[in-house]
Amino acid sequence: MAWDAWGDPTAAARLTDAQLALVHDVLQVSADDVHAVERQDVRLRPSTLTDDDHAELAAAVGAEHVGAADDDRLLHAGGKSTLDLLRRKSSAEQDAPDAVVAPGTEGEVAAVLAVCAERGIAVVPFGGGTSVVGGLDPIRDRFAAVISLDLGRFDALADLDEIDQVATLGAGLSGPEAERLLAARGYELGHYPQSFRYATIGGFAATRSSGQDSAGYGRFDDMVRGLRVVTPRGVLDVGADAPKTAAGPDLRQLILGSEGTFGVLTAVRVRVHPVPETKAYEAWSFPDFATGAAAVRAVEQAGTGPTVLRLSDEVETALNLATVSDAGSSGADDKPQDGGCLAVTVFEGSSALVEARHAATRELLTASGGTSLGAARAKQWAEHRFDGPYLRDPLLANGALVETFETATSWSKLAAVKQAVTETVQRGFAEAGSAASLVLCHISHVYDTGASLYFTVVGAQRGDAIAQWRAIKAAVNDTLIEHDATITHHHAVGADHRDWLAAEIGDLGVEILRSVKATLDPAGILNPGKLIP
Amino acid sequence: MAWDAWGDPTAAARLTDAQLALVHDVLQVSADDVHAVERQDVRLRPSTLTDDDHAELAAAVGAEHVGAADDDRLLHAGGKSTLDLLRRKSSAEQDAPDAVVAPGTEGEVAAVLAVCAERGIAVVPFGGGTSVVGGLDPIRDRFAAVISLDLGRFDALADLDEIDQVATLGAGLSGPEAERLLAARGYELGHYPQSFRYATIGGFAATRSSGQDSAGYGRFDDMVRGLRVVTPRGVLDVGADAPKTAAGPDLRQLILGSEGTFGVLTAVRVRVHPVPETKAYEAWSFPDFATGAAAVRAVEQAGTGPTVLRLSDEVETALNLATVSDAGSSGADDKPQDGGCLAVTVFEGSSALVEARHAATRELLTASGGTSLGAARAKQWAEHRFDGPYLRDPLLANGALVETFETATSWSKLAAVKQAVTETVQRGFAEAGSAASLVLCHISHVYDTGASLYFTVVGAQRGDAIAQWRAIKAAVNDTLIEHDATITHHHAVGADHRDWLAAEIGDLGVEILRSVKATLDPAGILNPGKLIP
Repeated sequence: MAWDAWGDPTAAARLTDAQLALVHDVLQVSADDVHAVERQDVRLRPSTLTDDDHAELAAAVGAEHVGAADDDRLLHAGGKSTLDLLRRKSSAEQDAPDAVVAPGTEGEVAAVLAVCAERGIAVVPFGGGTSVVGGLDPIRDRFAAVISLDLGRFDALADLDEIDQVATLGAGLSGPEAERLLAARGYELGHYPQSFRYATIGGFAATRSSGQDSAGYGRFDDMVRGLRVVTPRGVLDVGADAPKTAAGPDLRQLILGSEGTFGVLTAVRVRVHPVPETKAYEAWSFPDFATGAAAVRAVEQAGTGPTVLRLSDEVETALNLATVSDAGSSGADDKPQDGGCLAVTVFEGSSALVEARHAATRELLTASGGTSLGAARAKQWAEHRFDGPYLRDPLLANGALVETFETATSWSKLAAVKQAVTETVQRGFAEAGSAASLVLCHISHVYDTGASLYFTVVGAQRGDAIAQWRAIKAAVNDTLIEHDATITHHHAVGADHRDWLAAEIGDLGVEILRSVKATLDPAGILNPGKLIP
Repeated sequence: MAWDAWGDPTAAARLTDAQLALVHDVLQVSADDVHAVERQDVRLRPSTLTDDDHAELAAAVGAEHVGAADDDRLLHAGGKSTLDLLRRKSSAEQDAPDAVVAPGTEGEVAAVLAVCAERGIAVVPFGGGTSVVGGLDPIRDRFAAVISLDLGRFDALADLDEIDQVATLGAGLSGPEAERLLAARGYELGHYPQSFRYATIGGFAATRSSGQDSAGYGRFDDMVRGLRVVTPRGVLDVGADAPKTAAGPDLRQLILGSEGTFGVLTAVRVRVHPVPETKAYEAWSFPDFATGAAAVRAVEQAGTGPTVLRLSDEVETALNLATVSDAGSSGADDKPQDGGCLAVTVFEGSSALVEARHAATRELLTASGGTSLGAARAKQWAEHRFDGPYLRDPLLANGALVETFETATSWSKLAAVKQAVTETVQRGFAEAGSAASLVLCHISHVYDTGASLYFTVVGAQRGDAIAQWRAIKAAVNDTLIEHDATITHHHAVGADHRDWLAAEIGDLGVEILRSVKATLDPAGILNPGKLIP
C-alpha cells in the first residue's frame, strides 16, 4: 500500500466535480487548508536500536530479513486510520519502528521474541497494515526500542482437509492470497471485510474481524477452529481436532482479539466451504431506517439464511444514490429508488437452498414494508464493496475530516444508540467550527439479539485535525459506554480504544487480561500500549 | 432426585425379563453380586465445620438456609456418574459436604465466599446435581472443611426482551422450570440435554452443556449473551448488550466451562426464540455407520437446517430396536428396520422453512444412501429422549457396570476414534474378567468440521467396581488424547477428567487457567480439585 494513503496508488480515487463542490460549498474547506508533505520531506525519528540489537536480530532471522531503511520503517509506521494518515502528513519528525524484522519460521519468531525480551525491545506484530485503531502504533512504552514484526513470510496454505472442510492458513496471507489458494482447490473462506484486499489471516484473528458475508458465514472468530501462537513462554496450539469441547474455558476465544499482546499468530485453522454453486442478489427499499431495521431483524431472527444482509440509513442511501447515478450503471430493469433506505441481500449455496432462502427472505422483507429494487443495485454493491476507503484520501486532501467507526448493540437499543452517536458527532464538529457535518450509518452485521452500526462521518478539518478528531472520537466512545454499546464491533481496541476498555469489561475483566498477559509475556514486550490498559 | 439413583424415585425403571436374561446369560452377573445399602445404613463423614464457621455462614444467609442434616448433605454428596452411584452403595463412611448453604442474593453469595476465604472452607457450587464427571465431589483440598453452595434460590426469569429475544434466567432454574416460565410468554430456549429434567441454567453454562437440538439451536455456549458471576474479588458481568464485539478476548468464553472454579454464576442472559409454529419428524436407516456418518456430514456441511440430527451405530440401533419392539409403539405406517443404523431428524420453525429444510435434508440423506422410515420412530425418540439414565440403576443393581461418556473429533478421524475407543473399552472389560461387554455409540452433535461421539458401555461388575471403571475410563482418556480427540464434548472436566486436561490444552494452557484463577479466587476456595490441574 501507499505510505500515506489507502491501498494501491494506481487505484487512487479522485473527487468528482460534484463532490468537490460539496466540500467547497457545504464544508467550506479546500486543498489550501491542508498541509501536504512529499515522501522526500518526511523525517523519521532515528532508529534507537544499538548495533548489538541489530546483530542479534539479524542472527535470529538472517540479515536480509531485518529492514532498517527508512522506506521499510515508514511503511510499518502505523495503520490506515484517519489519525495515521494525518500523522503521515506532518513535517515534524514522525515516529516509526526502529527496524522491520521478518521471521520465516516459528523458531525464528521465538528467537526474535527471546532477543527482544532479553534486550528490552518492544514488538509490534504486523500483518497487512490495515489497522484503523492504532494497533500498529510504534509504542515503546518503557522499552528503549520497538520493532515491527512482519508476518509476510507465513504465506502458505499448509493443509486443506476436504472431508473436514478445514484449511490451515499462514498468518501472513492476505485475504486475496488466501482465497486464491483455496479457490485452486474449489474452496473459499468467505471472509470479506472492507480491508479484504490487504488485511491478513493473522490480523483477522487478532482483531476479531467481521466480513460482509457474516450473516451467512459468520464472523472470523466463528470460522476459527485452531490457532498457533508463539509466545515468549513457548508455542500455544489452541483448538484440537474437535470442533467443540467442554474441556474448560475456550482458549481460542482468549487468543482471538488479543491483538498481538499475548503472542504472535503464525497459523490459523479455519472452516472453509466449497465455492458456492450459485448466488442470488436482491436490493430493497424501506421507507425509513426503523422499518428497515425491523425487517432485517425479522429475517435474522427467523433464520431464513441470507449470506449478506445490510441496511443503509437515509443519509447513506441518498449519498450512495448520487454515486450510483454518477456511475450510470443502475440496471434498466431496476426500479428507481426514491429516498428511503437501501437494503442489500445476497444468497449463496446450492440452487435449491438459494431459491428457498431467497423466497423466505423476500416474503419477510415484503411483509415488513420493503419494496424490491431488483438485483442490479445489490450486484453493484458487491462489485464496489472494497472501494470505499479510496475516497477518504482525496477528501482529506481537500480539507474534509473523514473517518469511520462501528459499534454493536441489542436490537431494542439500536435506534437510541444511532441517534446519540449522530448527535455527539454533529456536536463535536460544530464545536470545532466545522460549517457542517454528515453522519452516514448502516447495519452490516446482524445477529439474533442485535446488530452492528457502522458510521461514516464527514466534517471540515479545523486547526489541528488530529486533536479535533481525537476529541470527537472520545465523545463518541463516552456515548457508546453510556448506552452499553460496545466500543468496537470489528475494528478492535488497539491504542485508540484502550482508554475505554475498562469501562466496557470492568476493572476485574482488565485484571484477567493482565494476568494472562503476565503469564505469556512476562517481560511485557508484546504490543505495549495496545488493548490492555 | 433420589439420593442413590437417577431422577424421580417414582419413575424408576425395571428391567424387562429379556434384559434381565441378557445380564444373567451374557454378562453372567446378578443382583447377588452387588452390595446394596439402605438409606438408614449410610454413614456420613462427620461435619468438620466448627460452631464459629456455622454461625458465620448462618449470619451470611440466614440460619434456615444452612443445612447441616445428613439428609441435606447426602443429597449434595456428588453427582450422578456411575462412580457416584457406586459410592452411594458403600457401607463404609461416605464423604459429603460439611453443610449445604443456600444464598438468595448475589450479596449473600459474596458474603458466603468472604466467610469461606477468611476461614479456609472450600466451596462446591451446586445446581441440579447431575454432574457425571465428579464436578460435585466434596473435595477439601488443603482446607479444613467444604460446603455445597446450592443455587436453588436463584430461580427467577428476571427479564425477557421480546424485541431482542433475550431472557435473563436465574442460575438455579432447572431446564423444565426455565422452559415453563418462557413458554408462558410464548418463547423457549430449546436446550435439551439428557439431564434436562434436573440440570440448571447455571450448570449448563458452567459445564458447556450441549442439548439434543444443537444442530438447530446450538450448544448452550452458543446461546449465552451474558453472565453474572460472583467471585471472591467481586461481581463480574461479562457480555454487554452487544451480541458480538471486537473489544478484546471474549471473557464470556472464559467463564463458560469454568465449572465453578472462577466464580459462582447467579444469572445467565440467553438467546431465546418463539415456540416454533410447527415440527416435522423423520427417521432414517443407513446400511452402516460410515455411510450414515457421511450422510449427516453432508447435511451439516450443506447447511440444510435440521433442528435435531443424530445417528446411532449398528449396536445401539439393534438394542434400541429391541426396546421399541418391547414398547410396542412403532407406528403402523412406518417401515420396519432391518439392521443397519438409525438416524433421527427433526425440523422446527415456520411451516414454510420447516418444509424447505425437510425437503433439502431428505434429498441429501436419500442421495447419501439413506432409506426413510417415516415419522413415528423419530417421534418416539423425542418422547423418550430423557429416559435413558433411568435404565442404568437397575442394571447396576443387577451386577452390570454401565456408564456413558462422549468425545468429539473431526469428521476425517471419526471412524478411527470410534474404533479405538471401542477396542479400549472391550479390552478393559475383558482384562477385568467381564464375560462380555457392549459398546454402543451415536453421533448426537454435528458441526461443519466434525462431530461428537457418545458412548454407552455395558460390562460385568468384577471385584471393586469403582477401581474397575476408573481403570477402563483412564485407558479411554489416554486413547482420546492419543487420537487428538477431546476428553469431553459436553460433560465437562470435573474431578474425573482433570488429570488429562494438560494433555489436551498443554501446560501453557493450564498456566493460563491458573493465572485467571489466582486473580479471581486468590484463596483458592472455589471448587478445588476440579477442572484445573
